[in-house]
Amino acid sequence: MSTLPATVVDELRRVLGDDGLLTDSSECLAYAYDNSRRQALPDAVALPTTREQVLALVALCRQQRIAITARGRGTNTTGASVPIAGGLVVSFERMNRILAIRPGDRVAVVEPGVLNGDLQKALQTHGLFWPPDPTSAPYCSIGGNLACNAGGPRAVKYGATRDNVLALTAVTGSGDLVHFGAAVTKSASGYDLSRLLIGSEGTLALIVEATLKLTPIAPQRRALRALYRDTASAAAAVARLMAQPVTPSMLEFMDGECVRLAREVGGADIPAAGALLMIEADGDDATLAAAIEALRIAAQGDGCLAVDTAPDEAAREKLWAARKALSPALRTIAAGKINEDVVVPVSQIPALVDRVTAIASSHNLRIVCFGHAGNGNLHINILFDPADAGEAARAEAALPEIFAVVIALGGQLSGEHGIGLAKRDFMSRAFDAATLAAMRAIKQAFDPDGLLNPGKVLPP
Amino acid sequence: MSTLPATVVDELRRVLGDDGLLTDSSECLAYAYDNSRRQALPDAVALPTTREQVLALVALCRQQRIAITARGRGTNTTGASVPIAGGLVVSFERMNRILAIRPGDRVAVVEPGVLNGDLQKALQTHGLFWPPDPTSAPYCSIGGNLACNAGGPRAVKYGATRDNVLALTAVTGSGDLVHFGAAVTKSASGYDLSRLLIGSEGTLALIVEATLKLTPIAPQRRALRALYRDTASAAAAVARLMAQPVTPSMLEFMDGECVRLAREVGGADIPAAGALLMIEADGDDATLAAAIEALRIAAQGDGCLAVDTAPDEAAREKLWAARKALSPALRTIAAGKINEDVVVPVSQIPALVDRVTAIASSHNLRIVCFGHAGNGNLHINILFDPADAGEAARAEAALPEIFAVVIALGGQLSGEHGIGLAKRDFMSRAFDAATLAAMRAIKQAFDPDGLLNPGKVLPP
Repeated sequence: MSTLPATVVDELRRVLGDDGLLTDSSECLAYAYDNSRRQALPDAVALPTTREQVLALVALCRQQRIAITARGRGTNTTGASVPIAGGLVVSFERMNRILAIRPGDRVAVVEPGVLNGDLQKALQTHGLFWPPDPTSAPYCSIGGNLACNAGGPRAVKYGATRDNVLALTAVTGSGDLVHFGAAVTKSASGYDLSRLLIGSEGTLALIVEATLKLTPIAPQRRALRALYRDTASAAAAVARLMAQPVTPSMLEFMDGECVRLAREVGGADIPAAGALLMIEADGDDATLAAAIEALRIAAQGDGCLAVDTAPDEAAREKLWAARKALSPALRTIAAGKINEDVVVPVSQIPALVDRVTAIASSHNLRIVCFGHAGNGNLHINILFDPADAGEAARAEAALPEIFAVVIALGGQLSGEHGIGLAKRDFMSRAFDAATLAAMRAIKQAFDPDGLLNPGKVLPP
Repeated sequence: MSTLPATVVDELRRVLGDDGLLTDSSECLAYAYDNSRRQALPDAVALPTTREQVLALVALCRQQRIAITARGRGTNTTGASVPIAGGLVVSFERMNRILAIRPGDRVAVVEPGVLNGDLQKALQTHGLFWPPDPTSAPYCSIGGNLACNAGGPRAVKYGATRDNVLALTAVTGSGDLVHFGAAVTKSASGYDLSRLLIGSEGTLALIVEATLKLTPIAPQRRALRALYRDTASAAAAVARLMAQPVTPSMLEFMDGECVRLAREVGGADIPAAGALLMIEADGDDATLAAAIEALRIAAQGDGCLAVDTAPDEAAREKLWAARKALSPALRTIAAGKINEDVVVPVSQIPALVDRVTAIASSHNLRIVCFGHAGNGNLHINILFDPADAGEAARAEAALPEIFAVVIALGGQLSGEHGIGLAKRDFMSRAFDAATLAAMRAIKQAFDPDGLLNPGKVLPP
């Protein structure tokens, strides 16, 4: 049973209805964890269906000083949705209506509980899509995408969540309903607070409605796979690809160790190489051939071993096989994995991979690098055997060294996963004291009592 | 002579050097006004050359409670850079170095005083550009562009200022040097405060360095001119143009009155029409023909009278003649002009033009609408004779009615000019009390003593 006072539970039930509040710990358990493998049981779970309920529950929690942790579908990997301070989890799973799709304005208006995949399906008939495409897209919620500034491979051309939201309605930590932005793509009308909420991981406000910026679907896509002698020549190709006018719709990188694992463990049918790029363009009959040719030319250069093209969708699948063989191969060789998603300026990719290789060597660890090269957003995976306490400890010890390298190279801790709990204590290495103080002042302005997702993003 | 206490002037001179402070009112006068025709004399003008000087002068002003108004080149039209509270103007004209251009990362690092046009020239040799292209681009500063979230016609494809900045270094109103963002195009690492500063019109912090996101130059462009029966059919074409995968690089609208004035007063050689669109695509040899064909098809439809294409640059100039004839024609028929830059959802353009026409009629005024149709960002020009007191008063009286229409249509007060003084008192009609309170809380967080550009953006 909930440890909240009975009067509070009664009041929450009055606000949310009998089936809108979970207090049984067995029911609350499903809301205790996320994909970070962290866990903390909330005192209760609210399942609001209206913004009025959200306003009422924030008012009540404020009065009673009860922590509130907003929750989408818990797919995040940083502990951002784990209610470490107990209190109330607010799950938006029942606020899941697509309120409007207006193709003429290229906007969709949604409640936060709509699943990314369900929105994409609904948009398809209009020839439109919403760009954020995290791996979890079929089952993650838009609210979670907003909270974490979700990205994905398409971000290289179409931007991440923050680039694709026009307006938000939210309930702040002070219990006020606020409206930021409008259904327009250009504005100079006061402070832009919608983008501030995006990526704030539920620490500033609870988003109850979002107006999303949509993009026309390019009807066709075509892939290139380019192999390189080494990371430096692949990174030089990334710079060339990004410096010409045809922006690739995907630009994915695998380092030499990833290529080797995909071949030797994953059974992928590709030649040996020191690095690999998967490059895609999208467009239509009229434009795609020219676009892919521009990318092919940019991909070539010193250290390029081969560029293979896929004339059709079947060949495309075959080209992607190496990338798809990677994740199973990683699971085969190591049960444990720390999956980081650091981001550095594109020109620093070779330095990052070199220095991570040196860290791996000095800690006697296997570390692989792959990811969204066009954004400099690399997934650094530290592989280890959890049953081997020494190796697990060495993996943990390598992490701060990797972050130190990233910061020294002018990068940031996270490109798309967020900070949550996992990287919170590294924030003071990534930002100086005055900058962190400015972030804390923002937190104070939106959430003066510190009720919203306490303990996340900002170090104590 | 300055009305600041002599000790303060001495201290400022110590910080800025003898030639870094202007106190003579004849010298200060050049910093008293902007393009809004408003004017207020500052007590002194600081011309810092380093961020350390900016830090020192903010500390001093904070101690002495002296207002600080940051200034670029004063090209804005809203009074945002007019020092209405007196005090110190900080002109960034001497902090005008391009600190780095890194083509591999597609970034430029600049001081705020660099002119937009000078940056574009420096970028050209690298095949890159920075998208914001206000009309004043040759002589406005990057710092001003950042402060006002400057846009321009290219924004329809490439975004406005806020979409093209990766990182800022700034001195807050509390006197702290803060670093927001990094030279990366994707990040989920704490609160995004760089975008919050953009468009805040110098009310939150003084920007001392910016890392700008660059875009490859498309080597060629081609124009279409489409004539329509009426605004509704032109607006339907805008929606079609924006709903297909080839985003135009410009998409400009003129209403029927503009077309008539361009023909009859400006002497433009175009057929009569109820509305006109200028449509451009950019690209290269390989892609441009296909792109322009996609746009030509989308431009056609019910109510389309003609679509003319320009096969070369000379023909392009000729097509643009109608648009270029407009501004001189407006000056010919009326000495006075209130030039607004409201923004509405694209689908609401016909309703906006209809209702503005009705307002013009009811006030016996001539009002014309033209502008950046792809963003729904229309320049509504109220024409009047300043010598005719009655007409001038009717022009002023029409303005609040236009803003009310814009807000009712889900739009915002400004698409690219900003709020400043000109639209400050309409903010409480555009935003509800709770939303304005959130903006005020942000102001308080960054500038607790209210020193920075007092009286701007937020209504008293």
